[in-house]
Amino acid sequence: MERVDHLADERNKAEFNVDDMKIVWAGSRHAFDVSNRISRLVANDPIFEKSKRAVMRRKELFKNTLRKSVHAWKMINELRLSDEEGIKLRSFMDQPGFLDLHWGMFVPALKGQGTEEQQHKWLSLANKMQIIGCYAQTELGHGSNVQGLETTATFDPKTDQFIIHSPTQTSSKWWPGGLGKVSTHAVVYARLITNGKDHGVHGFIVQLRSLDDHSPLPGITVGDIGMKFGNGAYNSMDNGFLMFDHFRIPRDQMLMRLSKVTREGKYVASDVPRQLVYGTMVYVRQSIVSNASTALARAVCIATRYSAVRRQFGSQDGGIETQVIDYKTQQNRLFPLLASAYAFRFVGEWLKWLYTDVTKRLDTSDFATLPEAHACTAGLKSMTTSATSDGIEECRKLCGGHGYLWCSGLPELFAVYVPACTYEGDNVVLQLQVARFLMKTVSQLGSGKAPSGTTAYMGRAKHLLQCRSSVRNAEDWLNPGMVLEAFEARALRMAVTCANNLSKFENQEQGFSELLADLVEAATAHCQLIVVSKFIAKVEGNIEGKGVKKQLKNLCYIYALYLLHKHLGDFLSTNSVTPEQGSLANRQLRSLYSQVRPNAVALVDAFDYTDHYLGSVLGRYDGNVYPKLFEEALKDPLNDSVVPDGYHEYIRPLIKQRFRSAKL
Amino acid sequence: MERVDHLADERNKAEFNVDDMKIVWAGSRHAFDVSNRISRLVANDPIFEKSKRAVMRRKELFKNTLRKSVHAWKMINELRLSDEEGIKLRSFMDQPGFLDLHWGMFVPALKGQGTEEQQHKWLSLANKMQIIGCYAQTELGHGSNVQGLETTATFDPKTDQFIIHSPTQTSSKWWPGGLGKVSTHAVVYARLITNGKDHGVHGFIVQLRSLDDHSPLPGITVGDIGMKFGNGAYNSMDNGFLMFDHFRIPRDQMLMRLSKVTREGKYVASDVPRQLVYGTMVYVRQSIVSNASTALARAVCIATRYSAVRRQFGSQDGGIETQVIDYKTQQNRLFPLLASAYAFRFVGEWLKWLYTDVTKRLDTSDFATLPEAHACTAGLKSMTTSATSDGIEECRKLCGGHGYLWCSGLPELFAVYVPACTYEGDNVVLQLQVARFLMKTVSQLGSGKAPSGTTAYMGRAKHLLQCRSSVRNAEDWLNPGMVLEAFEARALRMAVTCANNLSKFENQEQGFSELLADLVEAATAHCQLIVVSKFIAKVEGNIEGKGVKKQLKNLCYIYALYLLHKHLGDFLSTNSVTPEQGSLANRQLRSLYSQVRPNAVALVDAFDYTDHYLGSVLGRYDGNVYPKLFEEALKDPLNDSVVPDGYHEYIRPLIKQRFRSAKL
Repeated sequence: MERVDHLADERNKAEFNVDDMKIVWAGSRHAFDVSNRISRLVANDPIFEKSKRAVMRRKELFKNTLRKSVHAWKMINELRLSDEEGIKLRSFMDQPGFLDLHWGMFVPALKGQGTEEQQHKWLSLANKMQIIGCYAQTELGHGSNVQGLETTATFDPKTDQFIIHSPTQTSSKWWPGGLGKVSTHAVVYARLITNGKDHGVHGFIVQLRSLDDHSPLPGITVGDIGMKFGNGAYNSMDNGFLMFDHFRIPRDQMLMRLSKVTREGKYVASDVPRQLVYGTMVYVRQSIVSNASTALARAVCIATRYSAVRRQFGSQDGGIETQVIDYKTQQNRLFPLLASAYAFRFVGEWLKWLYTDVTKRLDTSDFATLPEAHACTAGLKSMTTSATSDGIEECRKLCGGHGYLWCSGLPELFAVYVPACTYEGDNVVLQLQVARFLMKTVSQLGSGKAPSGTTAYMGRAKHLLQCRSSVRNAEDWLNPGMVLEAFEARALRMAVTCANNLSKFENQEQGFSELLADLVEAATAHCQLIVVSKFIAKVEGNIEGKGVKKQLKNLCYIYALYLLHKHLGDFLSTNSVTPEQGSLANRQLRSLYSQVRPNAVALVDAFDYTDHYLGSVLGRYDGNVYPKLFEEALKDPLNDSVVPDGYHEYIRPLIKQRFRSAKL
Repeated sequence: MERVDHLADERNKAEFNVDDMKIVWAGSRHAFDVSNRISRLVANDPIFEKSKRAVMRRKELFKNTLRKSVHAWKMINELRLSDEEGIKLRSFMDQPGFLDLHWGMFVPALKGQGTEEQQHKWLSLANKMQIIGCYAQTELGHGSNVQGLETTATFDPKTDQFIIHSPTQTSSKWWPGGLGKVSTHAVVYARLITNGKDHGVHGFIVQLRSLDDHSPLPGITVGDIGMKFGNGAYNSMDNGFLMFDHFRIPRDQMLMRLSKVTREGKYVASDVPRQLVYGTMVYVRQSIVSNASTALARAVCIATRYSAVRRQFGSQDGGIETQVIDYKTQQNRLFPLLASAYAFRFVGEWLKWLYTDVTKRLDTSDFATLPEAHACTAGLKSMTTSATSDGIEECRKLCGGHGYLWCSGLPELFAVYVPACTYEGDNVVLQLQVARFLMKTVSQLGSGKAPSGTTAYMGRAKHLLQCRSSVRNAEDWLNPGMVLEAFEARALRMAVTCANNLSKFENQEQGFSELLADLVEAATAHCQLIVVSKFIAKVEGNIEGKGVKKQLKNLCYIYALYLLHKHLGDFLSTNSVTPEQGSLANRQLRSLYSQVRPNAVALVDAFDYTDHYLGSVLGRYDGNVYPKLFEEALKDPLNDSVVPDGYHEYIRPLIKQRFRSAKL
């Protein structure tokens, strides 16, 4: 078969070494090697084929996911893959399924909340997958408000058991992945009640199904919650509901690392610090930020390659038309998203460091940095997942009509990605947590308690409240200090304005709820500053590879100046920049777009995605889009026959004017 | 069965007469009566049931659509429905299918471009549906650039025929709805070639399939282009591809109203003015604007009712929690969308008037207002469809996790709506047309040619370039003159800035392409001004009904001030408002939200949507959300059996640690 590369010209234009950039993107030579090897392992295995998901019925799709999941687990064992490799394999399999919850939520919950004894017993089963677990927290009536969960776990001292019960319909567990049809066990969150006293929400290990025949145990009602967004997407997953009718479990199945119930029914808190759970949260959210960059990069890769293949207008004489990537309107929408993918990658990298740092401190009972780390990860989770959802849809629109085809990969990517805005903390609720932290920080300014970490800039409040940007020409917007100062001034001034407005209310809580919208904007400004500052720190640091640093600098300033333009109202109303400076930023942006243009395709090649993982006809590495669109179309079941099923019943009677007598 | 209304309290709170508002929303008592009657007719007919679309396979869904379409046509005939009623019936059927293209594109093309003779022959067949037609314009390689279409229609004087041919793979027709499996005929757009000369793109009536057995005629290759976004959505439609291999049609099947080819092969333009096609475009686009308000209103209706049902947080003592609609963050996102739905409704109403006006003028060969009308409809199509797509997704997010369920209705609505941003003119391409028109208008200022219609404000350039907003307190932002002046100043100043920047380029076209992003923003500002000004005109006019006008005024100012806040950067950088005035607008917005809050549910009740049409468990009229979510879940095929298919092959071997020997 002849090998084509319709994008060869684009690749030849690049002004940097793509292989070096691949290492920077992956984070290290080792990380690149693992990703590269495992992604090809998955791509070359026919069992992981995924192009037919859209035409599968629910049951078929679900069974196909079971097949892939078990196959993945088999490979992990047979090839003796490391944890890192196993995680990569599941991720490149690219089909949500029970493995995600078992390994991503059930096992970590046992590790984080189980005593050593409990870990010994349950982790040994879970690690070999002799039991399959999920994480049953969210209820039909309660998501964000975890403290409002209704399921009860009442201690019965007579039998030394907890009675797990769902007192109302809204207390039904609802959403947990892997619950509906697969899991044999769950960590269930319920209100602990002993001696008539409610001790709030705690976790319990509960067996749901028989290990012999998989039937739900007596007292347990469980099933699937039905179809979700998209054709494939999360419909491969058995998100489930679960109700308990006075279901009994032994006392030792309460997860007792942080607190326990004695044989007598006494509630006892352990001396393990509660803050540990925040450490886990930091971990989970940093991985969500890292996934945001991966998902956005997929969409950007598809849109960039297709924008280089697609031509439209611009020819007066029937000659070759202009590549749509050459239009400023396309660049103006696409390149900031390309820059965002890199920005989120590097802030994700930094969050990994933060998690390590927090963990080290927790080991020595140093909790000082935890509130700031917690606020920062909450905010970054919110900001990056919202931007990624919007960005994926924008990339779909950038692919014009063909982006609406399922085989473009973008509808699937959008449908599978958007829940990230809701799970692990609704994005608006999270920004309000950040806002609360910022208000507290502002209120303590001048108290001698210096703000730290990502809020350190607030310590320079005096300067930042008065400074005027010294940008005089477009090139000044490539000066890291000037860019940072503008973002810092904007973020600080918005926070201070909120704090001032809050102080006008007699009742702080009422003020807070009245000003929610402003507070969210202040929190967003703070989070954007973090991403910009970490990107700048990255490109100011040591970066190997021919031309690599120059490209990353361009992307860094595109990211910053695009935000500045998008939120110009913030910058102007806080006097952080003048209208003239704003317009200079636009001019600099246009110049940066021109510099990125010849490198665009190489910059998405650096993600090193296989065609299998991209799952997009429009984003194919070889750019051979049009013939492959035809091939995909011909696979649709509707094309099995030339004359469609339904012709004789409906179409023929209609055109033969016999519909009055036909059976309708 | 007991009738519940969980939203009764909300309805009792309303400070206006909902029935009166229904008339205002519908446009007239008559329009309301028709909609109300036909929507219930559809809702009560079991054939139009649509809740199972998500779990149907492609073929099944397609056949189901044939069934519904033919049933709808049968009803239209048997009940002798008027055209207006028939259109409503198809729209409430709410499932894309071949009827849409036959009636919406094929028949209008025959009417607009066919000679009287051609109309006599073809319309009589099409009107009875003895033939089914579609509209084959877009090609695999050409969408927006219609002049770049590659299909050829070469006149052969020997046989008095046109030879229709697809010279390349990219010239394949691609996307036309109804083409893939159903249509017997199509209006095909192809380059007309006579005597070796290319006369550009013209329309031809082409029979595609045998009227006896529906097989494609020799020389024609036709099929379906495959799955699209979403589970149901446009997958019910057979969007198709079509290739011609030297396919011959008689000469008289060229649509010859505007130009014709004689027996000798001479190309002759008729004396019918070309401008007529723009009249059709105005018509099509005004209906798209009207559909935008309908679609956005559906999403807003679902999100508003569910926000009143859903409770989360706010209870300290285990009592009843706060309705999420009471949170300012929710109001701040939801109410501007509610206001937008009304805004688009009224601008759509005005566009209907504009179309009538344009048509009247065309009849007397008065083409003076056409360019302005054309630019205005293009811009409003772009602006309202983009805002509606984003708004539907925002409403989905406002419903939290449950918005991700297919049965929320929002994933389906989003998937079926988003193509509106691309069809009938890509939204960015359309804004550039508006920008071109604005640049021309600016260049003619002072030339004595006074700008008219929606650009009339530009005639006051001298004042608008100098004026300073006189807003001094929050209440001033309810002054129609002050609001309008701020929007006019912003729009004009952005246009003038663009024109000034353009004039710095030696080559105008190069300047235009360099400044595309700024031009799009200027066009958007102009279009937003149009919507705001038409909304203000509406609420300043005569409106019947208790309390109705007050509500509409609130919504009008919410719409305007929300835009002002969202685009504050524009307003500040053009000095159209000061930062202090911007912050007063925010304060006024919050006060308006409080005033809308008690009326919110009644304001969406005024859309008069049936539960069938809404298709949403979350948006049910009675608010009985949770029990119905369970009912829906239980219908999923995955719940047919307690132990899922795949247990014995995959789950059991896994947990019994036998997967090494199991067949995977």
